Formats: sequence, structure tokens, C-alpha cells
Amino acid sequence: MTALISGAAVAQHNSRESCWIIIHGKAYDVTEFLEEHPGGAAIILKYAGKDATKAYDPIHASDVVTTHLPKDKHLGLVDLSTVEEVIEEKTPEQRRREALWAARPPVSEILNLYDFEVLSRSILAPKTWYYYSSGADDEIALRENHNAFQRVWFRPRVLRNVSEVDMTHSILGCKSSMPFYISAMALGKLGHPDGELCLTRAAGKTGIIQMISTFASFTFDEIVDARAPDQVLFSQLYVNQNRELTRKYVQNAEKRGIKGLFITVDAPQLGRREKDLRAKNADDGGSEAGAKIQEGQKVEKGEGHTRAISSFIDPCLNWDDIKWFQGITKMPIILKGVATWEDTVLAIEAGVQGVVLSNHGGRQLDMARSGLEVLVEVISELKKRQLWPNPNFHIFIDGGVRRASDILKALALGASAVGIGKGFLYSYCAYGQEGVERAIDILRDEMIMDMRMLGITKLSELVPEMVDAHGLTTHPVPSPEHVLYNNTYEKLQLAQFRDAKL
Amino acid sequence: MTALISGAAVAQHNSRESCWIIIHGKAYDVTEFLEEHPGGAAIILKYAGKDATKAYDPIHASDVVTTHLPKDKHLGLVDLSTVEEVIEEKTPEQRRREALWAARPPVSEILNLYDFEVLSRSILAPKTWYYYSSGADDEIALRENHNAFQRVWFRPRVLRNVSEVDMTHSILGCKSSMPFYISAMALGKLGHPDGELCLTRAAGKTGIIQMISTFASFTFDEIVDARAPDQVLFSQLYVNQNRELTRKYVQNAEKRGIKGLFITVDAPQLGRREKDLRAKNADDGGSEAGAKIQEGQKVEKGEGHTRAISSFIDPCLNWDDIKWFQGITKMPIILKGVATWEDTVLAIEAGVQGVVLSNHGGRQLDMARSGLEVLVEVISELKKRQLWPNPNFHIFIDGGVRRASDILKALALGASAVGIGKGFLYSYCAYGQEGVERAIDILRDEMIMDMRMLGITKLSELVPEMVDAHGLTTHPVPSPEHVLYNNTYEKLQLAQFRDAKL
Amino acid sequence: MTALISGAAVAQHNSRESCWIIIHGKAYDVTEFLEEHPGGAAIILKYAGKDATKAYDPIHASDVVTTHLPKDKHLGLVDLSTVEEVIEEKTPEQRRREALWAARPPVSEILNLYDFEVLSRSILAPKTWYYYSSGADDEIALRENHNAFQRVWFRPRVLRNVSEVDMTHSILGCKSSMPFYISAMALGKLGHPDGELCLTRAAGKTGIIQMISTFASFTFDEIVDARAPDQVLFSQLYVNQNRELTRKYVQNAEKRGIKGLFITVDAPQLGRREKDLRAKNADDGGSEAGAKIQEGQKVEKGEGHTRAISSFIDPCLNWDDIKWFQGITKMPIILKGVATWEDTVLAIEAGVQGVVLSNHGGRQLDMARSGLEVLVEVISELKKRQLWPNPNFHIFIDGGVRRASDILKALALGASAVGIGKGFLYSYCAYGQEGVERAIDILRDEMIMDMRMLGITKLSELVPEMVDAHGLTTHPVPSPEHVLYNNTYEKLQLAQFRDAKL
Amino acid sequence: MTALISGAAVAQHNSRESCWIIIHGKAYDVTEFLEEHPGGAAIILKYAGKDATKAYDPIHASDVVTTHLPKDKHLGLVDLSTVEEVIEEKTPEQRRREALWAARPPVSEILNLYDFEVLSRSILAPKTWYYYSSGADDEIALRENHNAFQRVWFRPRVLRNVSEVDMTHSILGCKSSMPFYISAMALGKLGHPDGELCLTRAAGKTGIIQMISTFASFTFDEIVDARAPDQVLFSQLYVNQNRELTRKYVQNAEKRGIKGLFITVDAPQLGRREKDLRAKNADDGGSEAGAKIQEGQKVEKGEGHTRAISSFIDPCLNWDDIKWFQGITKMPIILKGVATWEDTVLAIEAGVQGVVLSNHGGRQLDMARSGLEVLVEVISELKKRQLWPNPNFHIFIDGGVRRASDILKALALGASAVGIGKGFLYSYCAYGQEGVERAIDILRDEMIMDMRMLGITKLSELVPEMVDAHGLTTHPVPSPEHVLYNNTYEKLQLAQFRDAKL
Repeated sequence: MTALISGAAVAQHNSRESCWIIIHGKAYDVTEFLEEHPGGAAIILKYAGKDATKAYDPIHASDVVTTHLPKDKHLGLVDLSTVEEVIEEKTPEQRRREALWAARPPVSEILNLYDFEVLSRSILAPKTWYYYSSGADDEIALRENHNAFQRVWFRPRVLRNVSEVDMTHSILGCKSSMPFYISAMALGKLGHPDGELCLTRAAGKTGIIQMISTFASFTFDEIVDARAPDQVLFSQLYVNQNRELTRKYVQNAEKRGIKGLFITVDAPQLGRREKDLRAKNADDGGSEAGAKIQEGQKVEKGEGHTRAISSFIDPCLNWDDIKWFQGITKMPIILKGVATWEDTVLAIEAGVQGVVLSNHGGRQLDMARSGLEVLVEVISELKKRQLWPNPNFHIFIDGGVRRASDILKALALGASAVGIGKGFLYSYCAYGQEGVERAIDILRDEMIMDMRMLGITKLSELVPEMVDAHGLTTHPVPSPEHVLYNNTYEKLQLAQFRDAKL
Repeated sequence: MTALISGAAVAQHNSRESCWIIIHGKAYDVTEFLEEHPGGAAIILKYAGKDATKAYDPIHASDVVTTHLPKDKHLGLVDLSTVEEVIEEKTPEQRRREALWAARPPVSEILNLYDFEVLSRSILAPKTWYYYSSGADDEIALRENHNAFQRVWFRPRVLRNVSEVDMTHSILGCKSSMPFYISAMALGKLGHPDGELCLTRAAGKTGIIQMISTFASFTFDEIVDARAPDQVLFSQLYVNQNRELTRKYVQNAEKRGIKGLFITVDAPQLGRREKDLRAKNADDGGSEAGAKIQEGQKVEKGEGHTRAISSFIDPCLNWDDIKWFQGITKMPIILKGVATWEDTVLAIEAGVQGVVLSNHGGRQLDMARSGLEVLVEVISELKKRQLWPNPNFHIFIDGGVRRASDILKALALGASAVGIGKGFLYSYCAYGQEGVERAIDILRDEMIMDMRMLGITKLSELVPEMVDAHGLTTHPVPSPEHVLYNNTYEKLQLAQFRDAKL
Repeated sequence: MTALISGAAVAQHNSRESCWIIIHGKAYDVTEFLEEHPGGAAIILKYAGKDATKAYDPIHASDVVTTHLPKDKHLGLVDLSTVEEVIEEKTPEQRRREALWAARPPVSEILNLYDFEVLSRSILAPKTWYYYSSGADDEIALRENHNAFQRVWFRPRVLRNVSEVDMTHSILGCKSSMPFYISAMALGKLGHPDGELCLTRAAGKTGIIQMISTFASFTFDEIVDARAPDQVLFSQLYVNQNRELTRKYVQNAEKRGIKGLFITVDAPQLGRREKDLRAKNADDGGSEAGAKIQEGQKVEKGEGHTRAISSFIDPCLNWDDIKWFQGITKMPIILKGVATWEDTVLAIEAGVQGVVLSNHGGRQLDMARSGLEVLVEVISELKKRQLWPNPNFHIFIDGGVRRASDILKALALGASAVGIGKGFLYSYCAYGQEGVERAIDILRDEMIMDMRMLGITKLSELVPEMVDAHGLTTHPVPSPEHVLYNNTYEKLQLAQFRDAKL
Repeated sequence: MTALISGAAVAQHNSRESCWIIIHGKAYDVTEFLEEHPGGAAIILKYAGKDATKAYDPIHASDVVTTHLPKDKHLGLVDLSTVEEVIEEKTPEQRRREALWAARPPVSEILNLYDFEVLSRSILAPKTWYYYSSGADDEIALRENHNAFQRVWFRPRVLRNVSEVDMTHSILGCKSSMPFYISAMALGKLGHPDGELCLTRAAGKTGIIQMISTFASFTFDEIVDARAPDQVLFSQLYVNQNRELTRKYVQNAEKRGIKGLFITVDAPQLGRREKDLRAKNADDGGSEAGAKIQEGQKVEKGEGHTRAISSFIDPCLNWDDIKWFQGITKMPIILKGVATWEDTVLAIEAGVQGVVLSNHGGRQLDMARSGLEVLVEVISELKKRQLWPNPNFHIFIDGGVRRASDILKALALGASAVGIGKGFLYSYCAYGQEGVERAIDILRDEMIMDMRMLGITKLSELVPEMVDAHGLTTHPVPSPEHVLYNNTYEKLQLAQFRDAKL
């Protein structure tokens, strides 16, 4: 057994020339790694010679450093009793947020999914908030995702016996207590110390399916370990240039009982998100890039001053690769991020089990159409080609869902199920696991109400005639305001009390 | 004759374990009822051992407690001289509202129905205001009801002799001085001590038909008793699971001379209204749920922390029940809350006398289409099937009406008459009976004007060609604002006086 | 010669029981007239026993009192030296407005017609401003008039020799320096002491045609007397129940050389304008009703508390009357206020010389379509019936014109010429005659520019293909704002200077 | 060699009667020129008898005075040591702007083209900002140019190998590193001392093509001299009434190696831009008119008080002139400012090499459609006539481009390339040449991203199916706000922290 390294020994390596840090009681030599760190060298140098665990934990899965730093840089166990504790005084910002956390209304007073979001907006560190809430370019796609649902209206039926309502659903052949799943999102720990585990635990308790992100803050196995007996999980996958890493990831997922593999196909490169970029001018990283190290790749800086493209998302991924995936796993394969009927037809021809029609939450290509809008096009074109209905092919959508009514609209228009990401993310940012459970409760409550109002008792009774989607594909841009006229027009007034002071 | 109960005796039962209250001079043991009270136990416990009459009256019809509490809980008359008066100091909020009431402008200065609403907004207790003004979910349907009218334009005719204008109308064969009726609304006393009676009296004076709500603050008979000779009344009905209660209600209505039975078919469950829910976090109930006790049902709490579904609104109600109603009454039966042409055809086939095309004021299913929009679809589809015109079938609409022009648009598009609820509700909240009369005056004044401008002297001259409704079914959602562009653009300026201080 | 009446004698008659007033040096007994005064008794009683000239002048044509008060109430000349002068101290409001007048920018800095309006808004007495700027009901038609032009886009042609531009035009066979006329507006003196004469003089100087309002502040003859040699004038006509009065008016107009008679057909009753009504709660009248006395009719108050309908606008006016007009005058007859192709066809059949497609500036029936929108419908339907083009029939439009481009759009779509009202009204409110000339200069300047840009050198080269009006008939109402979403969304930010204080 | 003129001698000619000024060390007699100066006499008189170089330089090309003032007014060299230096104290405004310049964020933090604009808005002298940012009339066309792009959505393809992205392009047969060129803009020195040279140098460095404006602040040759070896330049041309001047300009351009002649055909007269006009009420000129003197023409003042029309832009220019141009140059001829398919067909028939579909940045005819909208019409009509595709004819568009996605949309819809003006103008106003390079970097970065997301690796793979432009030609004007309703409606609220002070 090797001797413990003393804190003093580590403390000598506190510069760019020689930089050691302590994580979870072990010392690592990261000198050569400094320039490769996706979050930048500065944030590491801040802890040079010190214990970096507290800063490391919220952003990295626990195995990142051990897995990806060469073995010879693992310096061994440290005698923590000799390490000077890094006392970071709480910043006024941190104190402000702690006070906000304490001042949250009781979770029982949360009425809808917007509530979680508006509270999170104040509670989260600004950089986390900007990272979570940002979209591509002008964020028109991001907002359109939500707005698209407002262009589909209901045609409810009356005088049907709706005393018993059953909203259970089958998603990829797995039972779900409701017709949606929790979509994959990266870097959950930034929003709450328990990060993605809040989702896993709440989902297990309520019978909802969760999709695990390749970029989760917890390791894949940590999340799987947290599931309840018989709890269903899906896995999202960013395909790595190093296919061996990908093969291991996929086969481990299958071994661990994952019921569906959602391969992301709309991110040959991670999107340009300006809120996130503006926030990054500070010294410590917190961007999605921070997660890329998980896959152990070096960051290429070939493209000037802009963001690095992690080589671990393989821009070469193409239809030929699908066959390879079909050879290494028996899990159902779903292509996540399809945006046209043409590619949906190709997906069917490729023999995969389904697609997620999605614009990646508006975070990749701005002004790509919403999943809901694409859904209508896809169903229509598949029908023309006698490719729909198709019991062996599943069409999911995600993006912008905030209400059970949104889910019901998508199902009426042909979706097999709906993915919800942000809605759940903010629920645990604001209240942890309890928030996620409350969010699911709210959706269940809305769902019962809406199904009764629509005159249905099971989801199979939901038909296209129950929605009026004729305006879905219109997304007019407001014409320029007519400044001179509007500033000249005298507005009408309403009655007023005699004493305006009242 | 039993001895009077002393105030001291009542006062001893002032706890959850034993709770007596005094209402209208009689004592009741409500201990076992506490948990069943739709408004919650807390508000009753506040008056445990005391006289609760003042708190009881504004929310409950007078017979609620006597009818629905088991006889053995009726403890008998109280010697009121021995009861300590509950002196509730006026809250600053109450004083504020009294001052506002005093500061109202003379009713003669009220120019339109919005005026009543904007005054009520200040005058009403916040919880009452939120209850009255709330809609389902995001309230898009609530606002759409009004906006739909703004998408129908007039095509007025000229050079017709319009010196004499006759706006009398027949509604279900009954004479009405104008082509609208006062629609049913619940809990009128919250807005004014005379509640629904303001409507009854003003309607009688002006020849307008009122529809009585099942959930009125006054009992059905109290309202009927307030009518003028020959005054026509309709009755709205929420159907109870206990059909015997419903049979009694219906047959009493027919006996009292009600001319039309409007069965609500769009409320298998009462809607989820968030303004109302937010307001309810305080300690005394004021929600529609408060009225449910009228029908004497226990409240089921099977659905978690969300609102109770009163069992007295029967979610099993369906087309088969209609035959039963036809067997127990000869009153014309109108289905209130139909939202599609399909269900209108079913209504005709079921042999009822009409439908109200409505989304329940936007209070039940958000994003159900407005009655006006459904009207155009229904008339068009009925015509295709040779089911329209039909002298034995009446198509009403309600929702969002604020102007006589709204009424004329609906009639031109085929409506038999139009229901107005909120417009009259707020008129008595702000001015009592006098306000309702003023509201009717305003509508009459607008009606004369508009009919003359349209070139008609009677309502039968109103034809579809007098409106341009081609844009009615477009309800575009504004695309996301383009934040960066809009914040960059330099706005044009207008001429300015030399001295900006002027 | 009768003796002069002394001021003291007049002063004794200072009550409702006996009320004399002095106007332009003569005494009148108005006791019996008090209740008939359209502006109300109160404003007369304010001057009971006194000299009312200063209050009378801005609102009444000079001959109103002499023409319409019975001869026996004309008491004769007053010895003005014995009349105590009515000294009205300037109110702070008057002083404020005088200061504003002095602070106007030089008229040469006025760049567009909005500028006149925004200045007038401050300069005018509030009641005048509200009267001038008000529309019917919710003023949607008023604003739509302007907005409609924003839905017609240009298709300009290039590479045409446009060095010489000729914008002269023929309107009803009369030469006009530009393709628009000044439309009739009532009560011009409220806005400027010279009222309508500002228009007459400027029009004469610039070769523009003015249409004289029946309700002008100056008498018809006063205005005609102010014209330049060969200056063309049109006459607008409200038809009186007393056809003899109308005959005299029309035949006098013809005698005085009026070149076109524009009979208003869209005002069987004057519109309900709420800005105006709110302003009238003060004590002195200033409404359009004030002008009705011109025609010497009694006001009927048969319609309750709402505004009186002057019997002098005859609601019986109909197509049969047109023949009568054709019998009493040879002037071209134009029906002003037609709103459908159906009535345009009737007009052609009736043998009149044209129509003005108009919704009366949005002041009569709210949500009647704009003249521009009706124009497209009318031209299309007339063409279908081989009724267009028609050299003997003229189609004018008015409403909402602020730019030369608006005029060119209307002409391209088939209008013979365009009426402009408010644009010129505000120009003299802000600068008198000089303002009107400036307004005409601005329009000429814009016209040259726009014609060159369109690639035309005379108006006859303007063809429908030069505009794209496909969106004209869409007038979407903005859907309800999505309050919760919009208040949750985090807006994008722009770059900021380092020091925000700058 | 002539003797130097003394400062004292010059100083004597300091009045309107005799006015000498010094520019670049030489004295000029401008007495007779005063009234002809497009910028007005006042600004010259301010420097009468003095050295005017500092005021002259930012607005005029260096050769303006020497070329266009008659030789006998060139008085010769001045002994500058005897000239009293004109010391102009910095105004607070100038100091404010210098502070702003110093406070700019590092150029690396600029994330998009809006950032440059918003910084320029503060940095520029107000008159410069108003001149640059102004459009015609109500600026609806100006804003529409940008908005049009927001109505075209993407249909991205997935699962294509996009590791290598090639965005090089051929524009008029010349190589360009990206599919856009820098469009011509006037008066560059107002925004930065290096004016247009910032563009030339940055374009040379990055392989982008620049189009030189006839009204550049630097002379044509100064700009050409600044180019890098093999750098491609185009030339924009305003055609002069004096064709000899135009011939010289064109033939010099050809001689200097210009690769394309873009003849402006949408400006027979310079537009009426109200922001610019309002700003001009100050004493020193800064308008586009200021540049007109370059061509040495007298200003006609025939049109009243409004802006002068420089006779050097020939309003007679027409299709017949094109033949003349084809006779004097072999450069490809492109017509800049075509707005209809009809004129595009004429252009093909005239044998020119292309058109720029454009509304001149919204600065000429307001409500002329955007280039993007015209593009769709043109391509569609040309196809109908078998005129497209056409390898010998090029269709460019400009107007409103801010993002690489805008460029890709235009190319997908058929554009050969896209012109960008303002985006680059503001980049050098805020950061000089470095800003232009940054702007190009940003566009490159966006372009790579967007191409990958669209699933293409070269621009030739961009097909119409990759965009959904069905809503492009809808440009609805927002209907009038419904003031009364909106001010009455009670907005929904979100959850709130317990302590609102947080």
C-alpha cells in the first residue's frame, strides 16, 4: 500500500507549470490536461495545489477524472487531514439564492409547470439559468415550440360517460402511467445536487419513463442503480467518433435493461446559444461543453475564437451507421431529432423502430420547425404512402410541452407519446424530487380534466377530429409596428372612480 | 315547544371535537360535517360555538344547511339575546372597497359593458374577483371568446328607411325585448348582497329573459318569487348523480313555469381555474365548490391534493339520459355547451329543442373554440345535411359578448339568440339592479344604432351577407418577438414642441 | 328705427324663467328654446342676461340664431356700450395651450401628416380633441382604415424615364392638381378661429378641391365666398326630414357653382363615439350635436338617457329619394358612405354619378370595413358584371389616408380619387391656413417621389399590377397574449458597454 | 514656383461676399460655390477664412474640391505655419462618445451582427446614426426586409456525413470564401475615419468581395489601391445625367480590374428619409446629399422647401441606356434594385448578366416588397417561362440580412448570392477593420453550424425543399389593439416567493 500524499506536497504544485489537484481524496496531475479542459484552464488553476472536489462535483460525473486521465497522472490517495480546507466564503449571490430557496412557496401551491420555471429563474446561478434556458441564435425555434401548441384548438365531444378515466399508455411496448416520458437533458447537477436522480426517483414512484442523457451529471450506472424494481428507462446517445466507446456504452445500456436507444441525429455539432455564450465570459465553465470530457476526447480548437467542437460528437454519423447499431444491440432504435417526412421514410426503410420529431428544444438550428408542426406533415405524407398507421414504428415529438393539453393535442395528431424535458428540469431545480412528483401530479390532474372535457375515457379514443389544427403551419411574424401612427393615436379610456387616489 | 338554547351552551362546542354553529337563529352540530365542507373545515371552525350567519349568507342559499344536514344535527332555536355578537372589525381591505363603492361615477356616465367590469375589478373582494374572472388553464379560450367577434366585420347596407327599428325577438317561443338572454352564473351574492335578484328584477322591468343557475346564491324558488307577472325565466341544470334530486329540481322548475331547461353538458368536472386556485390559499372559501353543498352531496377527495370533484355533477351523464329527461318534463330541453357539428346533429336526432354552442366562458377546457366559431361550422354542416333552417331547433351561443354588434354578428351567422353572463354580472357588482338596467339600456342604444347602420329595421332582415366572417377561423398566435432586432431598431419620432417641459 | 336695448334690460332676464342673450349686438329671447338646444340648456344659462357672442361663435355658423329662432324672439339691437363685458379669465388650461401654440416648431420642420396630428393633440381643448379624434364603439374601424393601407405593398417598375412627373387629375370632370380632395368635416371653428376657411383658402391656392360639410362652422355661403376665381368646390349633404330645407340647400349650392353633391348615406343616426361622450360630462357642449341646430330642427329625446337623434338627419332616406334629387339638381350626385358592391350596383342602376366607399372615418358603425377593402371587392364584382370600367361612374374612397403612397395604392386598385379629412383638419388646428398648404406640399413631395419610384410619369400609367393587395382582406386579431409563458421566458440580451452608466 | 499664401491673407476672406477656405494646405475661393453646396452655405461659412480640412475630410472624398471647383478658384498653396489653428473644443457630446468608444466590450465578446449595431447606435454622432439607420417614410419596408426572413423556416436533413463543410462560392465567376458580398454604402467616413477602407482591408484578408459605392467617402481609386493582390471588387453606379462623367467612371473601373458593374435602377431620386430629415435641422450637413458634390453637379432647388434632387442621378435612365453601357464596357452588368419578375424578364431580354432584387434597404420606396419575397416570385415566373435555371444570369438579393441562416434561406430559394450592407457598416463603426473581420468570422461560424444542421457540406446541396417558405408572402399588419378589453382583462400570475423583496 502506498503512503498517503500530504496536503503540503500537493500544495507545491500550484501553477501552470505543475498543477496537481485533489478530487475525492485522490491527487491528480493535470498539468498537461490544462489546455484540453473544455471548461478552460482558469477554473482548474484556481484549485491548483488544492482540494477541488466541491467545484468538480456539480459539473462532472464522478468517474470522469479517473476514466479519462491517463493512469500515470493518478497520483494516489491524499492524507486529507493534512489538506488545508478550501473555505470559500459564500458570495452575496450565493446567499441571495439560499434566501430565495428558503422563501419558496410550499410545493402544494405550485399550480402549473411555468411556476417551477419562474422560481428556478431566480434560484439558479445565472450561468446555470442561461445554460438551461438558452436556444440557438434568435431563439425563434425555442419559442415556436411552445407557440405551435397554441395554434391547435380542441373540438371536444359531450354527453359521454367519463366517470372513469384511464390514461395509462404503452411506450415502445413498455407500460407508462401517462403518455409522456422524461426527455434527456445534460448537466443536471448544476440545477440541484441530486440532479438527474431526482427524475429517476420520482419517475420510479409514479410509473413514468425517463430517458438518460449521455451528458448526465451522474454516470449512466449511478442513474440506473437508482431505479425502482421494474422501472423502465430509455437511453439517449450522442455517437462518438470512437465507435468502440459507443459500442461499450450501448452494450452496457442493453445489459442494464434499457428499453430503448434514442440516437441523437440533429447534433453533428452542438448549437450556438448566445445566452450561454454571454454568460461564459466569466471565469468558471458551466456550459454543455463541460460535459464533453466525459467521453474523454480532446477538444479541437480549429475554428477560431468560437466554441470548440467536441470531437466526441461525430459529424460523420450517417445512415450507413444505423446498420452497425442494429448489429450491436437488440434494443429498439429511435432516431431523435428528425425534422422532415423524407427522413422519416428513410428511417422506416432503415428498419429502426421510430423517430422523435424534434428541433432539440430550439437549441440547435434556429427556425427549424417545431416537432408538432413536423408531426402533421409526417403523418400526412406517410399515409399517402401507405406507411401509416404502422404498429412497428413509433413517432414521438418533444419541445415546448407545458400542459397536459399539449400532450393530448400531439396524440390526437398521431404522436405515439411526447417527451418533456425542461418542464421536469425546472421542477427539481425548484423543489428536488418532490418538485418532479408535483409536476407529474399536475399533469395527471390536467390530463383527467382534459380527457373528461374531450369526452374520452382512454387515450385510444383520441382521434384527429378532436383537434382543429388548420392554423398550425401559419406562423406569421408580426409586421413592423407602425410607430408614427401608434404614437399619434389617442387611446380609449374606461370609467374611473371619482377619486383617482383610491 | 322546546326551550331555546343559550348562547353559552353553544359556545362550549367550539372545537374540532365538538363544533356547533348558529345560523339564522338556529343551532347546528356540524362536527361530523367539518371534513365534508367543500370550502374546508377551517372556515367553519372560525365560527365554532358562534353565530356564523354573516359569513354563511353571502355564499350559501338559505336552505342549504336545513336541507342537507341530517335532521338530528338540527339542534333547535337559540336565544339570540344570550349570544355574544361576533363583531368583526372591518379590515382595511373592506374599508378600501367601501370607499371605492362611494366613489363610483354616476351610473349615467357608464358608457359600455367594459366600464362595469373595470369598476368591479376594484370593488370586489380579490377572491371574488378572481373567482368571477378566472378561466381554464392559460385562459386562451376565455380571451378568444371575445376576440372571435373582432374577426367578423360588417357589410352594412345603405339607403333604406330605418326610422322605425324593432328589436323584439322570440326566444324558444317566448317574447324578448331584445335578442339575448341573461346566462346562468353561480354564486351571485359574492358580488352583491342582492345577487341574482338584481338580474331578475331588472330583467322583469325590461322584458329580458334570465336563466337561473343551479348554483345561484339564492334558492331557485327565491329567484322565481322575485319575478314580475308574465316574466319569462329559463333554468340551467347541472345533473346530479342522484337522479331523484334532479327529477325534483326539474319538475319544480316546470311547475313554477320555467320556459326552457338548459342542461349543461360541458362540465363532467368543474374546470381548473388558476386565478381562483391561487386565491384559495387563504383561509375562507369562496369558490364555486362552495356552492356544491347545495345538492347535499359528500365531497370525494380521491384525486390527491387538487380540487375535489363534487359527486353531484355526474360525469356519467350521456345521450341515454336525454330520453329520461324527455320523460319527466315537457319543458323545451336545450343542451348547453355543445362544441361541434357532430354533437349538434346528435342533439337533433335525440329530439331536443336546441343547443347552446359554448365553451363555458372559457372556464372548462382551455383552447376549446369559441361559440361564435363553432356556430359557423355548425350552420354550414347542418345545411349540407338539409338540417337547417329548422324551426323546431334553436341554436344559441354565448361567450365574450360585450357589444350589441357582437349579438348582431351572431344572429347574422345563424344564432337564434345570444347568452350574456359576465356583462350583467359585473353590472350589478358595480351598481346593483340599477347597473343591470343601465347595461340593458346601453345594449338597446347600441342595438338601435347598429341596426340602422346595417340598414335593417327588424332582426329578420339580418342576413349572412351583412357580415364578412372569412377570417373567423384564423386565430394566429403571434410569433415570438424578435428581441435582438426590436431592441436594436431606432424608432421614428414625431414633431416636438420646442420646450419639452410643456 | 327702434331704440337700442340697454344692457341692464337684458341683464334682468338671467334665469330659466326668462332668458335673454346677446349675440353679435342683438338680443334674443331664448327662454322657450332652452330645452331644445342640442348642446343643452346649461351652457345657454351660463350667459343668461349677458353677451354670449364669444361662446357662440366657435360652435355656430353666424346665421344659426337669426335663421332658426322665431322672428318674435329677435328682440333687436343692443346698446353695447351699456353691456357689461363678460370677462372670462383664462383658465390654466387655456394658458397651457397658448404656450403650446407659441412653442410649435416652424411649419417647415413638419415632415408628415402625423406631425400635425400629434401637435393638435396637445394644442386643442381636450373636448375638441376628443370630438375630432373619436370613432364608434371600440374604434376598431377607425384604426383599421389606416391599417388597411399597410397591407397593400408596391410592385415598382424600374428603368423608365421619370424625369417629368405629372400628377394632375380630373375629379368629376374638374381639374385637380393632385388626385385627392379635402373631405367634409364638421365644426371646424373648434380647431381654429378660421375653421373651414383655412381649407378653402389653401385649396384655392394649390388647386385642390374642397368638399363643404353641411355642418361646417361657417355658413355655406361664407365658405363659397372665400373661394378663389375658378376654384372648384363640392358639397356634402345630410338630408333633412324637411325636404324643403334640403331643396333650398341643394339649389343654392348649384346656384353658387358647386360641382358635385355628395349625399351622405351612412348616417341615418349619428354614431356613438365614446371619447366624445366621456368628454361631454362637462358643462358646455362641443359635440357634433351642437351643429344640428343649423337646420333648425327640434331635438327629440325619445331614446332615454342616450344622445338625441337630431330629426334633421332623416333616417327615412332611401333609394326612392334619389330620383327626387335628380329632379331638383343637375349637379353630379355621389352617394357618400356606400360599403358593399351590392349597393354600388344599385347606385349605378339609380343613375347617380358615383359613390364614396367609406365607413365615415370609423365614426358610425364600428367594424364596418375600410373603404380601401371595399374598393377591391367592388371593382372585382363590377368587372364580373361588365359594369367596370365605366367613364360615367366614379368610385371614391376615404378613410385613414396619411401618405401619398396611400393615395397611389387606392388609385392603382381602381379609385377615381381619394378623400382626405383628418389629415387636413389637424394641419390647420396646428398652423391655420399655412398648415394646410404645408400638408399639401408634403403630399406633393411624397407623390413625386413615389411616382418616380413606381416608374410612372402620369397617373394613368398606374395599373393594378403595381400593387400587391393579396393580403388586404386579412385583418387578423392578435390572439390573446400567453401571459404565463411570456412572463417566464428569459429574453436575449445585446452587447453592453463596460460601464452601464454611460 | 508661386509664393505661399499667408494665413492672414486667407483670413480676410471670411464672409459671404468673399469666402476663402483652406483644405489640405491649399486655399480655394468658394464664394460663388456657396449657394451650390449641397450641405448648405452655413457649414462653409463657419470656416470662411480658415482651415476647413478637419470638417471637410470626414464627409468628402479627397478629390472633390480639386476636381469640381473651377481651376481659377484654386488659389494655391498656403503657408500653414501662418495659419491660426482652428481649435474646436470637444463638445460634451464628443467626449461622451469617446468615453463610449473606450468602454466597448472586447471585440471577441461580440456574438452577432446586432451587437455591432446596438453599440454603433451609441457611439455614432446622432446625425450619422440617423442617416445610416433611416428608411423611407414609415420605414415599414426597412423592417420588413428583416422580418421576411423570419417567415421562412428550415426543413433540415439528418444523418449525413457533415464533417467537412465547404462554403466557398462563385459570384459572377469570381471566387468568394462565402456566398455573400459587401454591398455598396455611401459616406463611410462618417462612421469611422477609415471608412470604406475598413471593408476593403477586411474583405481582402478574408476572401470576401466588396462592392464600391459611387458615393463612398474615399475616392474610387483610393479604395481600389487598398486592395490585396487578386482581391475581387465590384462597382456600384449611380448614372449621371452627364454621360461623359459616367463613361469615365465606368471605364476607369474596368481598367482598375473591377469584376462587375452594379447599376442602381431604383433611385431616380433619392428617398425621403425622415429620421435623416429631422436630424438635418442642425447647422452642419451630414446627409447623403453631401456626397453628391462628388459628381460636380449643381443642385436644383425647384421643389420647394424639401430636399434637393441632385441632377447627377439621372431620372431619365431607362432600358435604352443599357445598350449604351454594353457598348462602353465588357464588365458584367447587373441591374441593382429590380423589384418584379416583369423587369427581371426585361433584364434577361436586354442581355445583362443579372439583377439584384432589392428595395434599397427600405430607403427608397416604402412598402416595396423585400428582396427575399420578390425572389420567390421571380424564380417561379422565370421557371414558368423556361428562363430558369440560367447559368448566364445571376439573381442576387439584399436587405435585412443579419444571420448566416438568412443567407442560406435566400440561396435555397434560388439566389446566386446575397448582399450585406448595414451588418458590415456597423461592424466598422464599432471596431474599425477588426470589427469587419469579426463580423465575417461570426457569419462563417454560423454558416458552418447551419450547413451541418441542414445536412449539407457544400452550397450546391442546398435545395428549395430545405426551406418552408409558404408563409413568406403573408405580412399581416397587426389589427388595432382592443384597448378597452385589454385594459379590463385581469392577467394571470405566476408563483411568487414568500418575500417579494428578494
